[in-house]
Amino acid sequence: MPAPASFIKYVDDNAEAFIQRLAEAVKIPSVSGEADRRPDVIRMGVWLEGQLKQYGVQTRQVDIGEQLFDEKTGLKLPLPPVILGRIGDDQAKKTLLIYGHYDVQPAQLSDGWNTEPFELKHDKETDRLIGRGSTDDKGPIMGWLNILEMHHTTGTPLPVNLRFVFEGMEESGSEELDPLIEKEAAAPDSWFKGVDCVCISDNYWLNTRTPCLTYGLRGITYFCVSVSGPARDLHSGAFGRTIHEPMTDLIYLMSRLVSPDGTILVPGVQEMVPEPTPEEIAIYNQLDFSIDDFNVGAGADVAVSSDKATVLMGRMREPSLSLHGIEGAFWGQGAKTVIPAKVVGKFSLRLVPPQTPENVNPLVIKYVEEQFKTLKSKNKLEISAMHGGKPWVEDFKHWNYVAAAKATEEIYGRTPDLMREGGSIPVTLTFAEALKCNVLLLPMGRGDDGAHSTNEKLDRSNYIQGTKLLGTYLYEIAAIAK
Amino acid sequence: MPAPASFIKYVDDNAEAFIQRLAEAVKIPSVSGEADRRPDVIRMGVWLEGQLKQYGVQTRQVDIGEQLFDEKTGLKLPLPPVILGRIGDDQAKKTLLIYGHYDVQPAQLSDGWNTEPFELKHDKETDRLIGRGSTDDKGPIMGWLNILEMHHTTGTPLPVNLRFVFEGMEESGSEELDPLIEKEAAAPDSWFKGVDCVCISDNYWLNTRTPCLTYGLRGITYFCVSVSGPARDLHSGAFGRTIHEPMTDLIYLMSRLVSPDGTILVPGVQEMVPEPTPEEIAIYNQLDFSIDDFNVGAGADVAVSSDKATVLMGRMREPSLSLHGIEGAFWGQGAKTVIPAKVVGKFSLRLVPPQTPENVNPLVIKYVEEQFKTLKSKNKLEISAMHGGKPWVEDFKHWNYVAAAKATEEIYGRTPDLMREGGSIPVTLTFAEALKCNVLLLPMGRGDDGAHSTNEKLDRSNYIQGTKLLGTYLYEIAAIAK
Repeated sequence: MPAPASFIKYVDDNAEAFIQRLAEAVKIPSVSGEADRRPDVIRMGVWLEGQLKQYGVQTRQVDIGEQLFDEKTGLKLPLPPVILGRIGDDQAKKTLLIYGHYDVQPAQLSDGWNTEPFELKHDKETDRLIGRGSTDDKGPIMGWLNILEMHHTTGTPLPVNLRFVFEGMEESGSEELDPLIEKEAAAPDSWFKGVDCVCISDNYWLNTRTPCLTYGLRGITYFCVSVSGPARDLHSGAFGRTIHEPMTDLIYLMSRLVSPDGTILVPGVQEMVPEPTPEEIAIYNQLDFSIDDFNVGAGADVAVSSDKATVLMGRMREPSLSLHGIEGAFWGQGAKTVIPAKVVGKFSLRLVPPQTPENVNPLVIKYVEEQFKTLKSKNKLEISAMHGGKPWVEDFKHWNYVAAAKATEEIYGRTPDLMREGGSIPVTLTFAEALKCNVLLLPMGRGDDGAHSTNEKLDRSNYIQGTKLLGTYLYEIAAIAK
Repeated sequence: MPAPASFIKYVDDNAEAFIQRLAEAVKIPSVSGEADRRPDVIRMGVWLEGQLKQYGVQTRQVDIGEQLFDEKTGLKLPLPPVILGRIGDDQAKKTLLIYGHYDVQPAQLSDGWNTEPFELKHDKETDRLIGRGSTDDKGPIMGWLNILEMHHTTGTPLPVNLRFVFEGMEESGSEELDPLIEKEAAAPDSWFKGVDCVCISDNYWLNTRTPCLTYGLRGITYFCVSVSGPARDLHSGAFGRTIHEPMTDLIYLMSRLVSPDGTILVPGVQEMVPEPTPEEIAIYNQLDFSIDDFNVGAGADVAVSSDKATVLMGRMREPSLSLHGIEGAFWGQGAKTVIPAKVVGKFSLRLVPPQTPENVNPLVIKYVEEQFKTLKSKNKLEISAMHGGKPWVEDFKHWNYVAAAKATEEIYGRTPDLMREGGSIPVTLTFAEALKCNVLLLPMGRGDDGAHSTNEKLDRSNYIQGTKLLGTYLYEIAAIAK
């Protein structure tokens, strides 16, 4: 059952208004990671709730408490509310839960944006909609609103019952979201009662042309390793060559974690993952992807291999270890001759089954502690895992995926690629476990959208066709016998 | 010829007023490293010039042009003026040139200061004068002003002719100072004509109790090593294990520069420095210094050795290599899962004779480039030396040192330790070479003053006795036959 022609026409006829809606959303700088933007995040939640209400969705603002934003100063901030929504209670229809996040990554013109990040710019030459949050994740949320608008305005009944969970802290660790979902799922009068499947549109195509369905995500475990010694920062003239410098120790430790070709050096971690079978390698070779696509995404020719399957497996089915940075060391421009007293290295591993933070963390901690011992340093080592999430792999033969594949064929005229993602969306697994149902990741944007980067964009066609895709997916779900 | 008793009495009688003068100087936040403080630095120079003038010193404000403060934005700032001064032109007297700097390091209460950094606090319990610039270098400059005041107010003739060079950019690389000194030294009507020796009071005792004279400084060469690859920062979920990560390459390179025990790993660098002879080791063993003193300075037990001479030689006669930080990587609190596109490691070496930036830099650059090649990375390496200065070792048997030693004995009742410093004051060598005369470093403060750190202080006794020491030194210079 494809979507009615009236739906497709409505989307085309109202494309400019839909872009305006996205512009309105982008204009609210809902950066969850910056303290002084917190009121804007809350404002964004309220705006979104208003949009849902106007299309007949029953809503609930859930207060999930406070966040200790800064341990040093003790600054606490209110967490932005989780917006729950529900529309439709027809026992004869399937019930789909939709998740999205209304917060965005930080952005400043001076970071290297070509246009004001919080003013949506429709670049007519490239037909791109440029602005922070355009693709991550305001575009997909607007897609759902567009669909609601059409059904509400034209009096067309929705083909499925819908439930919504929109949060405002995704870019800052989804604080307090998991407990809320688990609590709501278990509540006697749960808004999640009867949910048959979940759809999350918060990731991207593998390339710039091929729609895909995503059935796997890597997990993550994030570490802080701190080395401290002197009571205060010291002058390298007065103290260089006389003390165990924390920075030297830390750089040594960080250099022992991963080799420049990406091999994880922590014993036992890579060994947990089975070698790919020839059949598995064949699957990756079939994906519509080339090293050139990859280089477009990275903006340069920096792939570790010229073999397509190797690069794809590196992203989807191998663990990785990335070194993110160092807190406490000199980070500015220019020169400073400091011996930092305390430095904190940040690194994380992306995990694949059967790895979990629970089985990987002890290996990492033990290894780092052992390496540190070999230094015979008088400095003090502390290592801790900050946050983590298990990897997730879903059954892609489920009707939820079948429906999405059909919808993709109708809108894009081609079978979507089935793929796993390198990133981590921990809430995916939370939904799967709390609601005991199938979860689908159905991306709207392309692989070169630059979600966390400067000049984030969503192609106009991805926004408009994506709205059609999400709507058609609802009808395809409905078409499958309950 | 000790200083007249009237001088000593004047200093004691006016101690509180002298502390007030220091408080007035500390109150001007003359931070040369912060753009918005630049007017304060200039104000400080003007204030200082006024002080000199009121005691009969002829002054000249030298405009040394502009500074390109920020390459990215192109922000240019006026350089604070160099204040030249001269008093006395008696051919029968010796002529001493005095250098000091009136700018200071950045400081904010939130950095961990116990009191407002730009309000001098006289802590009566410890008898410390606490405030930014108290010891580095406003205290010593005020010492010279105190001496001028006494001679001017009481109509006492100065025992020597004095020349002054006070700059406002020492904490930011002394930009444009060297050319000015060289130009002034060579000018036909040079204010430096007839200078017999130089005194700089801008360093510290080795410990907290023993006055010293300093006859050597390490040189410095400061490097930026940049590794870049992707066109923009990437998400570690999407790209981890698929690209050559610049951060992994850089951490590898930085880990190959120095071992955690301080050994420099760049071939040929350590080898330039002769092994210490038993006689030389004996000199270091005789210095009034213990590992405990050292730990007080560092604030913790982090010395690389429990052998006193090893630690002292590490500071004074061995080269060192310190890793200062990384620009472009994640440096904030919390967690960010970024793969930085371009990271710039900052490190510097302190040099000892016969090392110079000229003979060391090629070794470092070649080594880093070779190490990078072994990685077979697709990223791009750039390494450059930012700034440098040769090491300086002076003849400590010169009458300039003899006079300072006698003055120390008169004021402190003990022979000063003769020592070399681990830090670098490039202008020292500039004066030695441009004026072809002996340069003495005569410190006022103690080894635990925390010059570039929080809660910088100058002990009241070091300030008042230090003023007497500097004054007596003038008389001891005068006592030596010209």
